[in-house]
Amino acid sequence: MARLTIALGQRSYEIAVEAGALDGVADHVAPWIKRNRSLWVSDSTVAERHWPRIAAQLEAAGVAAALHIVPAGEASKSWAELARLTDWLLAEGVERSDTVFALGGGMIGDLTGFAASIVKRGCDFVQVPTTLLAQVDSSVGGKTAINTAAGKNLIGAFYQPRFVLIDPQVLSTLPPREMRAGYAEVVKYGLIDDAAFFEWCEAHGADVLAGHPDALHHAITTSVAAKARIVGEDERETKDRRALLNLGHTFGHALEADTGFGERLLHGEAVGVGMVLALHYSARRGLCASRDADRLAAHFQACSMPVTLQDAGVTADGAELVDHMRHDKKMAGGTLPFLLARGIGQTFLCHDVDLDDVAAFLDEAHADAR
Amino acid sequence: MARLTIALGQRSYEIAVEAGALDGVADHVAPWIKRNRSLWVSDSTVAERHWPRIAAQLEAAGVAAALHIVPAGEASKSWAELARLTDWLLAEGVERSDTVFALGGGMIGDLTGFAASIVKRGCDFVQVPTTLLAQVDSSVGGKTAINTAAGKNLIGAFYQPRFVLIDPQVLSTLPPREMRAGYAEVVKYGLIDDAAFFEWCEAHGADVLAGHPDALHHAITTSVAAKARIVGEDERETKDRRALLNLGHTFGHALEADTGFGERLLHGEAVGVGMVLALHYSARRGLCASRDADRLAAHFQACSMPVTLQDAGVTADGAELVDHMRHDKKMAGGTLPFLLARGIGQTFLCHDVDLDDVAAFLDEAHADAR
Repeated sequence: MARLTIALGQRSYEIAVEAGALDGVADHVAPWIKRNRSLWVSDSTVAERHWPRIAAQLEAAGVAAALHIVPAGEASKSWAELARLTDWLLAEGVERSDTVFALGGGMIGDLTGFAASIVKRGCDFVQVPTTLLAQVDSSVGGKTAINTAAGKNLIGAFYQPRFVLIDPQVLSTLPPREMRAGYAEVVKYGLIDDAAFFEWCEAHGADVLAGHPDALHHAITTSVAAKARIVGEDERETKDRRALLNLGHTFGHALEADTGFGERLLHGEAVGVGMVLALHYSARRGLCASRDADRLAAHFQACSMPVTLQDAGVTADGAELVDHMRHDKKMAGGTLPFLLARGIGQTFLCHDVDLDDVAAFLDEAHADAR
Repeated sequence: MARLTIALGQRSYEIAVEAGALDGVADHVAPWIKRNRSLWVSDSTVAERHWPRIAAQLEAAGVAAALHIVPAGEASKSWAELARLTDWLLAEGVERSDTVFALGGGMIGDLTGFAASIVKRGCDFVQVPTTLLAQVDSSVGGKTAINTAAGKNLIGAFYQPRFVLIDPQVLSTLPPREMRAGYAEVVKYGLIDDAAFFEWCEAHGADVLAGHPDALHHAITTSVAAKARIVGEDERETKDRRALLNLGHTFGHALEADTGFGERLLHGEAVGVGMVLALHYSARRGLCASRDADRLAAHFQACSMPVTLQDAGVTADGAELVDHMRHDKKMAGGTLPFLLARGIGQTFLCHDVDLDDVAAFLDEAHADAR
């Protein structure tokens, strides 16, 4: 078992990574149980798979457990489901010192964390992520949100969980495509500032995707440690530090917007293609070598992951894609800071990107594919 | 002009109190204007009264001003109005570094502050309170919220404004009944820990209610200074300190719940009666002298304010009223901490109040009135 700490003063917390952790869940969550009862939130798919054994263990430990089920899918990150969840928490008599457990992928973590942040002006919550993407990225760091008609994650809070319990074994039932989508965020940490980890990914990515326990453990703990370090330095993204975690996300967000934020292109897939685009664009500006961008694309292709606009099913032209970017939360003073790279492991935040130039680059990328 | 500071580290801010401040509003808010534009939220009543001169001054200063109008009344502290307001902010292209201005009473401040706390995970906001209650209480301290079917202020955030601009002159158009309701919160600060200020209220309360400028200025600055001090010591009500500000609120909340949270009994009126009840209950438990409770009731009566359950139009019996209290946000471990007093200016948080005993006391209070 690995235990990592995210250092945020009074809001510090631990992240435990242990294969089979859910078979000892009652012990793991015991410190967060008050009055011998617990409140859990999950989605229909995850609950069917994991709730029976969790409920059985809590019962054996003498802890009452109430479960609220949210419909699976990104569409549940909505005002309506948020109100339904907080109504349920209030009906269950939630108190400020109570802990709400989020059992599921990014949608469940984002929705539950946001609900916990606003019910009675804030109660505690614990993340039990069940997808690779949630385990290496969204469950750690305290970004919570819902979507609105105007865009994704536009309403939310910075609100840290009190504990994150990661059981890599639950990934054995995850569909391979979701596994690959989460893997893009793993590779991201190599690209940001850890070239050696990127090399490790090139050598062991196939093992990670096949669910080899040692490879999975290393991929998850390395990712979480990197995220914990960066979030510890810049919790609310007010410096340029935490923004590094958005590598590939500005391009990726535009691709998701064009493909409808759903099954056509998963978030992790969009981030993967977005990172390839970010490196190609960096090369086009003479910031990094073209071979770095090609090397990333080759690794993703070897993993059967999409790498081009065509792979991503994106048909919008450069101007349309850049229009989506203009609605980004990170727009400041009318400009958009952009994550670019001087090489693998050398990502930086660039403040002088001309969005018209990005549009021209995307049109070229379309033309290259023809 | 008085300038008070609320000391909360990075979240510290100033509160300016100045008669006629709204006639110089463009100068006062200038530090919070970015890109020569500003976003304002108000209600229909307040906007009609004050928006034209504010808009004219901003225009003269070359600052574009957009106004979102919320229907007047407590019913607007709802999910629907919250989503409508955040949709508007997003449509206006609000950025994290932008400031949203809340121009109005407690409803506008609570709704706007909460919206600011969650739009793009938080943008800045400034309070420009236009009722006595908002000026001396709700605009300072960062409690924001909406109501749900389960109760008042159950969904919200601790989120501090960046600045509070108080113009006592706007109170000249406030209905006398609302003025009296706000005055109950002024007297509260004397009861908490400032017996000398309570004495001042006895001598000058009539002047305050009549809108005498010096008396009003003293009442507001003394109240705000007291609140700033207490909030600075315990921002999120995790110690017993900030809870002192809830004197009269647990009784008051039950009275409001019984009378429908509306025009029948205003929030400030309920708090006033609640404080009288808290002192009578303290006397019944032998904690303070009966004459202290009588003295408070006498002052409120001299100000034509309600002091008994009968005055408040409350017909529910003790058991029903206590049932309302059980849904309080402050319930912890199944018990409810209660604000009681050892005398005027000697309020304390009591952790061993038996709610059945409170119910019996309320039944006696009903019987006394017959």
